[in-house]
Amino acid sequence: MTILLYDLVGRDATRPFSPHCWKVGMALAHKGLAISTAPTRFLEVPAVEGGVSKTVPVIRDGDKVVADSFAIALYLDEAYPDRPTLFGGEGGKAMARFVERWSQLTIHPYVTTAAIIDLHAMQDEENAVYFRQSREQRLGKRLEDVVIARDAGLATFRAALEPLRSMLGYQPYIGGASPLFADYIVFGALQWARIASPYQLLDDSDVAAQWFARCLDLHGGLARKVAAAA
Amino acid sequence: MTILLYDLVGRDATRPFSPHCWKVGMALAHKGLAISTAPTRFLEVPAVEGGVSKTVPVIRDGDKVVADSFAIALYLDEAYPDRPTLFGGEGGKAMARFVERWSQLTIHPYVTTAAIIDLHAMQDEENAVYFRQSREQRLGKRLEDVVIARDAGLATFRAALEPLRSMLGYQPYIGGASPLFADYIVFGALQWARIASPYQLLDDSDVAAQWFARCLDLHGGLARKVAAAA
Repeated sequence: MTILLYDLVGRDATRPFSPHCWKVGMALAHKGLAISTAPTRFLEVPAVEGGVSKTVPVIRDGDKVVADSFAIALYLDEAYPDRPTLFGGEGGKAMARFVERWSQLTIHPYVTTAAIIDLHAMQDEENAVYFRQSREQRLGKRLEDVVIARDAGLATFRAALEPLRSMLGYQPYIGGASPLFADYIVFGALQWARIASPYQLLDDSDVAAQWFARCLDLHGGLARKVAAAA
Repeated sequence: MTILLYDLVGRDATRPFSPHCWKVGMALAHKGLAISTAPTRFLEVPAVEGGVSKTVPVIRDGDKVVADSFAIALYLDEAYPDRPTLFGGEGGKAMARFVERWSQLTIHPYVTTAAIIDLHAMQDEENAVYFRQSREQRLGKRLEDVVIARDAGLATFRAALEPLRSMLGYQPYIGGASPLFADYIVFGALQWARIASPYQLLDDSDVAAQWFARCLDLHGGLARKVAAAA
């Protein structure tokens, strides 16, 4: 039986871009579970599984429907305990939440700044209208006024990744010798940027970029199957 | 058999202040291990256990000597597996390293800025000379020129704790429902500030301050036994 993943896309259904959906895509591959995806536009999210969630990812696994990337990862580890763990124990579950909040507060705002015009351009006409309205309301300014902070903010963004770099001096993954869901959390944020925008967030020589490249190679290069934005 | 902890102190041997020694003191209490402490001044560190380490904490457990707070925590979990875990599994060990690097890079520099004059004042004459020389060389400026950034940096410091606060919306400790070594890592940094300086880092209403207060209550209020600097 395959697990169905509702995966956020724009005009091109082969370029899923949501950071949270990528966390789940990587988690499903990590568990070695067969999946099918339902490409989902922003405006289709409210109809997913009868309106179970305001956001994707949502998965259906037989009779079970689960929303929210972290909740899905917890569900997968509980439902499939014989497959590779996503958390490495109870401590890992708890600390993955810290990593999630760090990623959400440190990486997501800058990716939003850097990629917002590109994310808008990826949507079809109807969804682009929704995207502009909802984001301009949330951010309190026009999309074109968001992106102008991009160059000025780049050095601060890169500096904010120092804890990740410093950790990589001890071990190759946040999960230790091999990746865990905590890696996919941070990976998802940078994959979102990679797929949406050609703007270069990291230098290739950056150890954080090298960790990201290792994540792109995981699970048969799953995450490279969607090309970087050009 | 008790474990001997070489614990950094200044003029007053009853006021150990090192963030890294506090991590270990809390870890030893968490494991329920009996300890004795050897109050150690900066200039005495090179003679600890025949010069095994340039820094404290160092512990002696029977024939075994271990230096470095993280290495000590790993040792304690391995040597005493039947006592409460400090990491909650392999994933927790790996992610505690991320928390450590985050704390070291996010909290330590500001505590240094805020408390450096107070830390200097805690030392006896000889150690104060060492402290001033070594810190002024490391920081590239006079101690008096370090502390002047304190008020201007406070808001940024507080904002940098947002991942901790956001995580606390999900669970009471970094370790989840109960504390793990990752909590003691961040706790140690704030306890260092609490013991050295009366400067108020956090508002009492801050959920991060409330988490810190919960840590002060742990293990019979161990960490409250040293009063806050007045």
